[in-house]
Amino acid sequence: MVDRKGHPLAPGSTIGILGGGQLGRMLSQAASRLGFKTHIFCPDPDSPAFQVTNRSTIAAYEDRSALADFAESVDVVTYEFENVPAETAAFLIERVRVDPDPAVLEITQDRFTEKSFIRQQDLRVADFDAVSSLAEIAPSAERLGYPCVLKTRKLGYDGKGQQLIGAPRDIAAAWSAIGGKPSILESFVPFSKEISVIVARAADASMRCFDVTENRHENHILRTSTVPAAISSATAKEALQTGRSIAAALNYVGVLVVELFVTEDRSGEALLVNEIAPRVHNSGHWTEDACHISQFEMHIRAIIGWPLPDPHRHSDVQMTNLLGSEIYDFPRIAAEPTSVVHIYGKLTPRPGRKLGHVNRLTPLKPH
Amino acid sequence: MVDRKGHPLAPGSTIGILGGGQLGRMLSQAASRLGFKTHIFCPDPDSPAFQVTNRSTIAAYEDRSALADFAESVDVVTYEFENVPAETAAFLIERVRVDPDPAVLEITQDRFTEKSFIRQQDLRVADFDAVSSLAEIAPSAERLGYPCVLKTRKLGYDGKGQQLIGAPRDIAAAWSAIGGKPSILESFVPFSKEISVIVARAADASMRCFDVTENRHENHILRTSTVPAAISSATAKEALQTGRSIAAALNYVGVLVVELFVTEDRSGEALLVNEIAPRVHNSGHWTEDACHISQFEMHIRAIIGWPLPDPHRHSDVQMTNLLGSEIYDFPRIAAEPTSVVHIYGKLTPRPGRKLGHVNRLTPLKPH
Repeated sequence: MVDRKGHPLAPGSTIGILGGGQLGRMLSQAASRLGFKTHIFCPDPDSPAFQVTNRSTIAAYEDRSALADFAESVDVVTYEFENVPAETAAFLIERVRVDPDPAVLEITQDRFTEKSFIRQQDLRVADFDAVSSLAEIAPSAERLGYPCVLKTRKLGYDGKGQQLIGAPRDIAAAWSAIGGKPSILESFVPFSKEISVIVARAADASMRCFDVTENRHENHILRTSTVPAAISSATAKEALQTGRSIAAALNYVGVLVVELFVTEDRSGEALLVNEIAPRVHNSGHWTEDACHISQFEMHIRAIIGWPLPDPHRHSDVQMTNLLGSEIYDFPRIAAEPTSVVHIYGKLTPRPGRKLGHVNRLTPLKPH
Repeated sequence: MVDRKGHPLAPGSTIGILGGGQLGRMLSQAASRLGFKTHIFCPDPDSPAFQVTNRSTIAAYEDRSALADFAESVDVVTYEFENVPAETAAFLIERVRVDPDPAVLEITQDRFTEKSFIRQQDLRVADFDAVSSLAEIAPSAERLGYPCVLKTRKLGYDGKGQQLIGAPRDIAAAWSAIGGKPSILESFVPFSKEISVIVARAADASMRCFDVTENRHENHILRTSTVPAAISSATAKEALQTGRSIAAALNYVGVLVVELFVTEDRSGEALLVNEIAPRVHNSGHWTEDACHISQFEMHIRAIIGWPLPDPHRHSDVQMTNLLGSEIYDFPRIAAEPTSVVHIYGKLTPRPGRKLGHVNRLTPLKPH
């Protein structure tokens, strides 16, 4: 295993990125602004990240010959998504430094281990049980109460692999809809808001946070992220502390995002951790245009051993995802006075597919 | 010649860029943020812009076969430098849209035609004569007065091809130092400040300006650009109007930069036009981090027919070039609290070579 003696990496070094979607693309762009080269590894020949680098490998994540060449050509490896196969990570880590440590993926790739880990940190999560058969669901649902949510343990994102169970009669259909896979059953959280915290952590354990982001989903897909979030300063402080404690507990290097639910009752706001994304995240896209440093550059700086500045936010902002055919609206959006448009270079505008986003800036308001 | 019926170009189109230096690199990055592909054409195999695109051509600007393939592969061509050979431009313009119109280059590639053009717009320039032999210099210098400056008509930048003549005894050495080439002799301007104006003009004649920039040179190389410039609002207004009138007179499409001298006497500040750069410019690098839109995106938007927003500046800023071995100072600069570092990916740090820049941001101050 490679140690950190090479830190900080100098401009001209090469950063390997597993995954060629928009996150890999924006990571590559941030790296190149600092004078770094990138090498993108992705099985999809139409990967949008390939457009912004002169070095790319189209190969399966299981292709050991391609992975060996890739490891040889780069100074550090990172990834844009959390479902990197464990064998791929294990193969690479013997040859080149990989940040964040793939051990983190073993925790976050499985909702049960992830939520168990969060609970071990004395942080609140919605109550849950592991369920691995249809027969286990009803007793668990009785314990948790209705409504509750059935979620596959692995490979869920954007609401995929989730089913709401409102009453006992929904159980069989929900189990069938998620394919009868090992799952967790979770209490339904009647949240008033969804927020996220973007934490960057360096190898020397220093940490920086961006301001708390308020997120709104539609059909389980992120629609807007708004900063500042309309929450109390005490809640914001607790959310940031939650993000920091998770990053520290994982001994994390890079940018990590924690999604939380805000619930409200007579005693005020309370927080529940929803999930951990061990990577840059859609809810951090606003940072690129509202701060002096973006989540992408923070991640790159963390893995190349550069100092992490406290992000200075110069504007209030709302990020809106451009989904599917909304992308054709670019002439109107581009004409808005203080909007910044980002388009990812994807070829086909399938419904609901994230093809770009717009950051709408407004001057800082005191709050 | 291709007309503008294709406007606006849609994301996924390809922008051809002649020249692979840092300006081509930053133009390519701006284009990719809007979802455009780029194809960089440059004879230098180590061009830093090649690192940020998957499509590049290494060929001489006189290579017609390579130029024909290049024209075929792109939807519009632009350039990062003003010394594109006239034949190259003429060859391309028969095959593909080229913006800005290369006719502009014929004016700005020659200091005599450039200054004559500026004077024709009823704008003030330092007094000058064309000189094409040693014998012509002394009479011209008598007319202009000492000190005066001898400058080659073509291919001058960063002070190359310039000699100060303080007295008649300097004439022969100055003529020899610039290689005895066709030149202009120019009155020395005892300026108090150097400023520049960054103008973006669209094909529909709409124009937008960034705030006036105050520049400081060392050894004829730009050292810092500071915004806001410490000039009166009347002078700033006149400078912006000068930039607009030059862009309009050239029927320009894209970003154009006008460098001016500010002189001061008892009656106040006055302006003289120094030169026109028909391209994005080093003195506009601050726009990337202090405004919601950069000079690079403004140029790209102009040539793809997208609307040009009024640039909203959210911060005060000083840009400092990182020259030669100063680049090795990156760990210290990267640790500054609100600095944004840009490194160009060039291989060799020759003395005086522009290898990067840093934009130091501060909150807007009323002025």
